[in-house]
Amino acid sequence: MDKSAFDTDLDRQSANFESLTPLTFLARCADVYPNQPAVIYGARQYSWKEVRVRATNLASALAARGIGKNDTVSIIAPNIPEMFEAHFGIAAAGAVLNPINTRLDPATIAYILDHSQARVLITDTQFAPAVKQALATLANNELIIIDIDDRQNEQASTDDERLGETDYETFIATGSSTFPWVLPDDEWDAISLNYTSGSTGKPKGVVCHHRGAYLMAVGIAAAWPFGLHPMHMYTVPLYHCNGWCHGWSLAVCGGTSVLIRNVNATNMYRAISDHRVTHFGCAPIVLSMLINASDEEKKPFDWPIHAYTAGAPPPSAILAGIEALGFSVTHVYGLTETYGHVVECASQPGWSDIDGDALAEIKARQGVRYAVTEGLMVADSETLQPVPDDGKTIGEIMIRGNTVMKGYFRNKQATDDAFSGGWFHTGDLAVTHLDGYVQIMDRLKDIIISGGENISSVEIENILFKHDAVMAAGVVAKPDAKWGEVPCAFIELKPGKTATEAEIIDHCRKHLAGFKCPKQVHFGELPKTSTGKIQKFELRKQV
Amino acid sequence: MDKSAFDTDLDRQSANFESLTPLTFLARCADVYPNQPAVIYGARQYSWKEVRVRATNLASALAARGIGKNDTVSIIAPNIPEMFEAHFGIAAAGAVLNPINTRLDPATIAYILDHSQARVLITDTQFAPAVKQALATLANNELIIIDIDDRQNEQASTDDERLGETDYETFIATGSSTFPWVLPDDEWDAISLNYTSGSTGKPKGVVCHHRGAYLMAVGIAAAWPFGLHPMHMYTVPLYHCNGWCHGWSLAVCGGTSVLIRNVNATNMYRAISDHRVTHFGCAPIVLSMLINASDEEKKPFDWPIHAYTAGAPPPSAILAGIEALGFSVTHVYGLTETYGHVVECASQPGWSDIDGDALAEIKARQGVRYAVTEGLMVADSETLQPVPDDGKTIGEIMIRGNTVMKGYFRNKQATDDAFSGGWFHTGDLAVTHLDGYVQIMDRLKDIIISGGENISSVEIENILFKHDAVMAAGVVAKPDAKWGEVPCAFIELKPGKTATEAEIIDHCRKHLAGFKCPKQVHFGELPKTSTGKIQKFELRKQV
Repeated sequence: MDKSAFDTDLDRQSANFESLTPLTFLARCADVYPNQPAVIYGARQYSWKEVRVRATNLASALAARGIGKNDTVSIIAPNIPEMFEAHFGIAAAGAVLNPINTRLDPATIAYILDHSQARVLITDTQFAPAVKQALATLANNELIIIDIDDRQNEQASTDDERLGETDYETFIATGSSTFPWVLPDDEWDAISLNYTSGSTGKPKGVVCHHRGAYLMAVGIAAAWPFGLHPMHMYTVPLYHCNGWCHGWSLAVCGGTSVLIRNVNATNMYRAISDHRVTHFGCAPIVLSMLINASDEEKKPFDWPIHAYTAGAPPPSAILAGIEALGFSVTHVYGLTETYGHVVECASQPGWSDIDGDALAEIKARQGVRYAVTEGLMVADSETLQPVPDDGKTIGEIMIRGNTVMKGYFRNKQATDDAFSGGWFHTGDLAVTHLDGYVQIMDRLKDIIISGGENISSVEIENILFKHDAVMAAGVVAKPDAKWGEVPCAFIELKPGKTATEAEIIDHCRKHLAGFKCPKQVHFGELPKTSTGKIQKFELRKQV
Repeated sequence: MDKSAFDTDLDRQSANFESLTPLTFLARCADVYPNQPAVIYGARQYSWKEVRVRATNLASALAARGIGKNDTVSIIAPNIPEMFEAHFGIAAAGAVLNPINTRLDPATIAYILDHSQARVLITDTQFAPAVKQALATLANNELIIIDIDDRQNEQASTDDERLGETDYETFIATGSSTFPWVLPDDEWDAISLNYTSGSTGKPKGVVCHHRGAYLMAVGIAAAWPFGLHPMHMYTVPLYHCNGWCHGWSLAVCGGTSVLIRNVNATNMYRAISDHRVTHFGCAPIVLSMLINASDEEKKPFDWPIHAYTAGAPPPSAILAGIEALGFSVTHVYGLTETYGHVVECASQPGWSDIDGDALAEIKARQGVRYAVTEGLMVADSETLQPVPDDGKTIGEIMIRGNTVMKGYFRNKQATDDAFSGGWFHTGDLAVTHLDGYVQIMDRLKDIIISGGENISSVEIENILFKHDAVMAAGVVAKPDAKWGEVPCAFIELKPGKTATEAEIIDHCRKHLAGFKCPKQVHFGELPKTSTGKIQKFELRKQV
């Protein structure tokens, strides 16, 4: 075939092609809105121009130590300015950001530092005890270690141990603010490596690329929408899925992040009130904190506040409760493998006519694909045949498109399994409703099979949440001689409230078929991940 | 060098990579907001689901006639539903959209049909007289011709001639709504071919690609911002730079376009009032129509309306006038070569404290780069050395990034010239202010050189617009024995107003240095392009 005239003398060149990278947004934001605050952290505040300077200094200091393309830089820190600027500065060195969950045990930290082939570790002194133990077992003894000494840490004591050769401020002071960024040669280059908590087996390292991070950033700004100069409260841990890519997205629209080191009701209401927060994202458990805050903790507000909630299917009772306080909530869904939320329960024009409780049920659905997500379906895990839109037939949620990870780091088998058939298999089981909205029924491994019937643990949990005394609830399968498995409930009660096993089971019977009701109820504090997910594998150990 | 672990077993595959194309947004919007109106055109209204059906039918009908990848499909039509859906349907056939300016003369239409290698022409019967003459001279006699017979055309007469083998509705009825779209193999594939009006020489064909159209679409939605479900009045001709990519962008956020076949004050105010328009884009001359409308034409509104204005540097008097009516205006700048507006006079937090006239002066600047635009500078045309940020030194505006065209169709020399040094040379002369905002002083060819001094024709025009009697103004160079060139003004007066040459020159003397004042003033209607630009080459013929 002859070459078309549309493909002749019309090649990519530097005037019309550049690799997509979220660094573009920092450069522009610092040029266009230099004095707009990028982060507010108590008395510390940095404008976008200052974030560019500090991120460039970090990149420069890393480069001076020989760190560059495809080198892993790990960081263990909560939501503080250093963590925010690391999302830009490490990429600007051409290196790969590896944020480590601050709640991990020493053995897992050591595993991640080894498996990720980390060359640098930036670590907040609060976590020195666990990190020190991890370092003692590390194969790599050439790791460059830099301490962050955060004087605003409410839990800081003057004798917090330092583990590294220098502290963060001293380190970046060795860099130059005129250092030329190492932009990606290819937008497919890695920008981050995030280990998923993984309830079984070793954590897997999710590799994300510059292209996806760019598209998520602009996609979020368009979809939420952020508007211009949003005031964003950073309640999502930045170590979790790069803070859902919100930091990169805020650089698209000159937004500000209020950083909170310790997420609790007092700190959140104070941030909302002091800074007129307009947007935040969090797990449903954090919404629950806002709902159940004491009157002294709560502060009134009279402007629109838009929340994204994700991380676990939100009980409709929590959605109804948080909206009653005046927050506007959109339920979103995604995974670290998809750069965060790529499915949203997009509001429909007709929904304003639906009454509160019924609407909360609808808004608890995971929803439809994001504008920058090319494909979403609920399908048979093996045949990839989509389920009918009947709201009943269960299949696995599959996602495809430009905001899906490169794959798992140094784990070809896991990558091949996850991408089998040309779709990313999420491991979440769901139905598709007639309107195309998907709703999660369970994790693949959390489904309860009783007498041959599938029982969704999420469905039971939703009912438990409607009980006035229930603060948190988790349901898992209990082996049963007769039925194979039966549901077993674990419940954390609200302060000052009481309930008995019989009352809870009776409550369930009013709303669920008999075979779906828990046969056993345990009371007590529930084990949770740092992002508010209930750790069902811990519950399973108890049954 | 060893291959990095980040580049091993982490290749692109269908789960995580798809060519960027704005067709993605139509597919999603039709899935997520199926019943949301996409276009409203008088009594005709199509939902996003219907636009998908009609666009798919069009693609299918084209494919059945052998039209596919890299085939040019030309269309001559105003802003009507057929034109809107062509922006999706032609791309969905894998073909290249070539919208032709409806005001062109037969010889130019014939030139474009030949040079573009058009295989299909879709033509609105209103333009049959010119098109018929063009076809008579055409080298290609295998062109498939399809008529659009728009019964809502206010100027339509029952004997409008049909030139083609069939009409549009009959043609698309031959297609199938289940036709599988021909998605781009490569996001660099051409999506459109737009001939620039070109005041000198033959028009040049600007080739745009799917990648850039996708990025502009999501970039506009984030930057304007559109928010969710904007009501957009389509005053920009869709044949001009693909309607600034707004149609593709509205598919990102479930927006609606009110289409206006004949843009005048009556039709615009009616659309605003009937449909609660929230956004529109237009040339400054259209803002002028809104300002100078009669009291009977004007209709009140009490909700925010956001306008983008571009196409010519807007006189600050027009910006002040339109804001006084309650419209919120952002001045944007771009060219067909950059997919439309890639520079915006982004509002700064402190501007609310600046008084009206001074603010209008600031808002008349072209501004700063768009979030999806990688590079903007004012630089020496030869050396590409940026000018200082002094608001005085004149250089050429240069743009670089992913929303710059592939190049000019079948014109390697013009492409090479335009991209010389790795930047797109716009041909517009500007200064950079201390805050980084660029301001156009003139087109490269419109600058007036008098006694060795550069005089900006735009600067003089801005002063002329401040005169109460001036509706439109254009200034060009007049050859002068003593000074080389001197400014000569052409003025169109407002209805019912009068002014003399002496009064105009006297008005200029109050605001400009003597050597910048026009030495001659002509009164009468000014020649304009269809997008509201004054045709200075016509004025030059008169001096």
